[in-house]
Amino acid sequence: MSDYTKILLDENEMPTQWYNVVPDLPVPPPPQLHPGTMQPATADDFAALFPKALIEQEMSTERYIDIPGEVLDVYRLWRPSPLFRARRLEKLLDTPAKIFYKYEGVSPAGSHKPNTAVPQVYYNALEGIKKLTTETGAGQWGSSLAFACAQFGLECEIWQVAASYNAKPHRRTMMEVWGGKVHPSPSDVTDFGRSLLAENPNHPGSLGIAISEAVSEAVKSDEIRYALGSVLNHVLLHQTIIGEEALLQLAKVGEVPDVLVGCTGGGSNFGGLAFPFLREKLAGRMNPTIRCVEPTACPTLTKGEFRYDFGDTAGLTPLMKMHTLGHSFIPEPIHAGGLRYHGMAPLVSHVYDLGLVEAIAIPQTECFAGALQFARSEGIVPAPEPTHAIAAAIREALACKESGEEKVILTALCGHGHFDMASYDKYMRGEMVDLELSDEAIAEAMKSVPVLA
Amino acid sequence: MSDYTKILLDENEMPTQWYNVVPDLPVPPPPQLHPGTMQPATADDFAALFPKALIEQEMSTERYIDIPGEVLDVYRLWRPSPLFRARRLEKLLDTPAKIFYKYEGVSPAGSHKPNTAVPQVYYNALEGIKKLTTETGAGQWGSSLAFACAQFGLECEIWQVAASYNAKPHRRTMMEVWGGKVHPSPSDVTDFGRSLLAENPNHPGSLGIAISEAVSEAVKSDEIRYALGSVLNHVLLHQTIIGEEALLQLAKVGEVPDVLVGCTGGGSNFGGLAFPFLREKLAGRMNPTIRCVEPTACPTLTKGEFRYDFGDTAGLTPLMKMHTLGHSFIPEPIHAGGLRYHGMAPLVSHVYDLGLVEAIAIPQTECFAGALQFARSEGIVPAPEPTHAIAAAIREALACKESGEEKVILTALCGHGHFDMASYDKYMRGEMVDLELSDEAIAEAMKSVPVLA
Repeated sequence: MSDYTKILLDENEMPTQWYNVVPDLPVPPPPQLHPGTMQPATADDFAALFPKALIEQEMSTERYIDIPGEVLDVYRLWRPSPLFRARRLEKLLDTPAKIFYKYEGVSPAGSHKPNTAVPQVYYNALEGIKKLTTETGAGQWGSSLAFACAQFGLECEIWQVAASYNAKPHRRTMMEVWGGKVHPSPSDVTDFGRSLLAENPNHPGSLGIAISEAVSEAVKSDEIRYALGSVLNHVLLHQTIIGEEALLQLAKVGEVPDVLVGCTGGGSNFGGLAFPFLREKLAGRMNPTIRCVEPTACPTLTKGEFRYDFGDTAGLTPLMKMHTLGHSFIPEPIHAGGLRYHGMAPLVSHVYDLGLVEAIAIPQTECFAGALQFARSEGIVPAPEPTHAIAAAIREALACKESGEEKVILTALCGHGHFDMASYDKYMRGEMVDLELSDEAIAEAMKSVPVLA
Repeated sequence: MSDYTKILLDENEMPTQWYNVVPDLPVPPPPQLHPGTMQPATADDFAALFPKALIEQEMSTERYIDIPGEVLDVYRLWRPSPLFRARRLEKLLDTPAKIFYKYEGVSPAGSHKPNTAVPQVYYNALEGIKKLTTETGAGQWGSSLAFACAQFGLECEIWQVAASYNAKPHRRTMMEVWGGKVHPSPSDVTDFGRSLLAENPNHPGSLGIAISEAVSEAVKSDEIRYALGSVLNHVLLHQTIIGEEALLQLAKVGEVPDVLVGCTGGGSNFGGLAFPFLREKLAGRMNPTIRCVEPTACPTLTKGEFRYDFGDTAGLTPLMKMHTLGHSFIPEPIHAGGLRYHGMAPLVSHVYDLGLVEAIAIPQTECFAGALQFARSEGIVPAPEPTHAIAAAIREALACKESGEEKVILTALCGHGHFDMASYDKYMRGEMVDLELSDEAIAEAMKSVPVLA
């Protein structure tokens, strides 16, 4: 294996358990609060939205949770995913560092999102649910859920932010190819949507509005539930298969990471890669620096506050303690749509607050510059979100070039950019600008965060 | 391995030789003819267009040709490609047949085309060439060549049919991401292009015109050569790595194909999959039925004549003996753009003429219906070209359901459909029509075929 390019695992080497970081943390994470009572939320509070099995996982303190056989069967359509040694990028950068990237773009939907869509649909199917609803922006999550629903014979109804629905029809078509039913949001099929259309027939919509519509449809029937693609504990749990595989793959070539970088939007890609390595670090078996990378236009960890806030714009979700820019905050329309989130997965925020992981913010033109270097050396054209992780890995590799250190850098390339060519076009034509959030804008948005007694 | 979903090979199991079918054929293939002298073309006739190493491969009678180490290094970015057992499609069809598909969409460009783009660029680089030119329609070949040029530091200049350049900008952007320079064709950078633009500033272009422009740029300098993505012997040679890998993968699970189906446009995907199996068949080691699948709108093998004709519309290439609909034939704008070719790889035509392989034509709505069944069961959304192979595999599997036969069916899924969502949208909205070529239209187009003495 001395000159390997990628490290593969056979299907029978695929991990059969997800890893729950909670029992290994030195301090337990703060509970979610019921928005009415401000008391810790109970399983019952979630019952109208999620199936029992997922609520149990959301609150679990078990270290390992078995992946059901039927979920493993679907995972096998693309998993285990490859771990690449970026030899050609290393050569381009002339760095003594070793760069590894775990590539999740091999899934049918082209990102890491199916890792949680598949088990979410499976557990709903097991409890007799006939239809799932969700919201989507550009369409990454919606297409992943539609794919998963097709696998288990569930209906899938998706509210897509109207501006994206109209401007970027290709992801919508992909959802329909997998049998999904897609509405522009606001839509004329919910009371809330109709009320907004009455005010403005050309309403562009928002993720917050789309969540409200998807939730309002889910609570209408015992046969319908709602699905969320990031932020929540059970979502991060499902994504840990990324890190568990990467651990096995690095062990095959006798490498141990010195630095791990992952992009953070809702936090599921980062948590999925990082938490198994955090376990190893907490157990003293390795000591990697673990670093979140976020856009300067949405600097949740680096400039937000660690407070209880709502997960959605409308304030319908339980209150979660997380780094937030305020749930009324609407990030600038940067190209990494998946990183435009005012909050953060509570588990990621918690480990960041404990000092177990670091965070940096990178402007988008640096990210796209790194993406071009990556594409021209490694071949794969990355989605805008993981260009942040790539840019951070390049920074680290160039620092090694200065210092002469032969660090082992690990990152996650969480999706391909085949549906993001308009962003690349804008960058190459010199029309992309960097967006730095001002302290005043943050202070203004933070006013929406509720003040707890 | 009893319940495997896909069969992987490690990098060190990747074949290190391409297979040349020529020496194993019972009758040698007819030579290409110089268009001026009508005598067999010599190596010198190709010297202004291709590097020596590729001309040697074009005319080689060696059974195996070593793959250079630097080409293997680039192949490792995505090869060996996975062989899937389509268990979920089998279940959906309720067939006793076993369906296997070799998936080439894992390459950076998303199709099988880089299998030949990489060695073509390598051999040009070795002979000191600084720039390659080519033509492209929708952009699959152009993006593959741009990717390969980025790997070896060559410039890449691409003439893209203007109608596609303007209507489908995403593949063009992908070529630019890899550093390619893309012109709409007709362009204002060649004499021929300028003459056409003078007549019609909004000329939509054609593949024939784009070839003429790319060739005219290549012959201008000793440091520039031209590259072709299908049809020629050396292209099919490079693609045989598909079939060689598939042989190893099927052997791993103890399966032997009864039927092999592949889509045919220029013939390189089909030849790449089929020729190694044809070798095994000719040697008596297995006896699969081998079947070409083409669109009813461009039925080259099933309705064309086996004659000497030009490879391009303008009549610049050597004359090749192949099945042709006449080089003046312009196929209807079906969605499988890669299958819109008036001719056929001479080697594929030759083995078809010898009765070693069969051919059928399938209308495009049946292909897209099969593609939806495939996407909803197997996950992957296929490109329009391999939907023809999928539809043929489904026909065969349903015949097995009738007969009770447990046939082993092998096909090649030569690319993903991420850039073809507009075609899926049209199909799902019921706006796609089938196009059957009339005998009168064929007779008309055949008038352009030169009559040899």
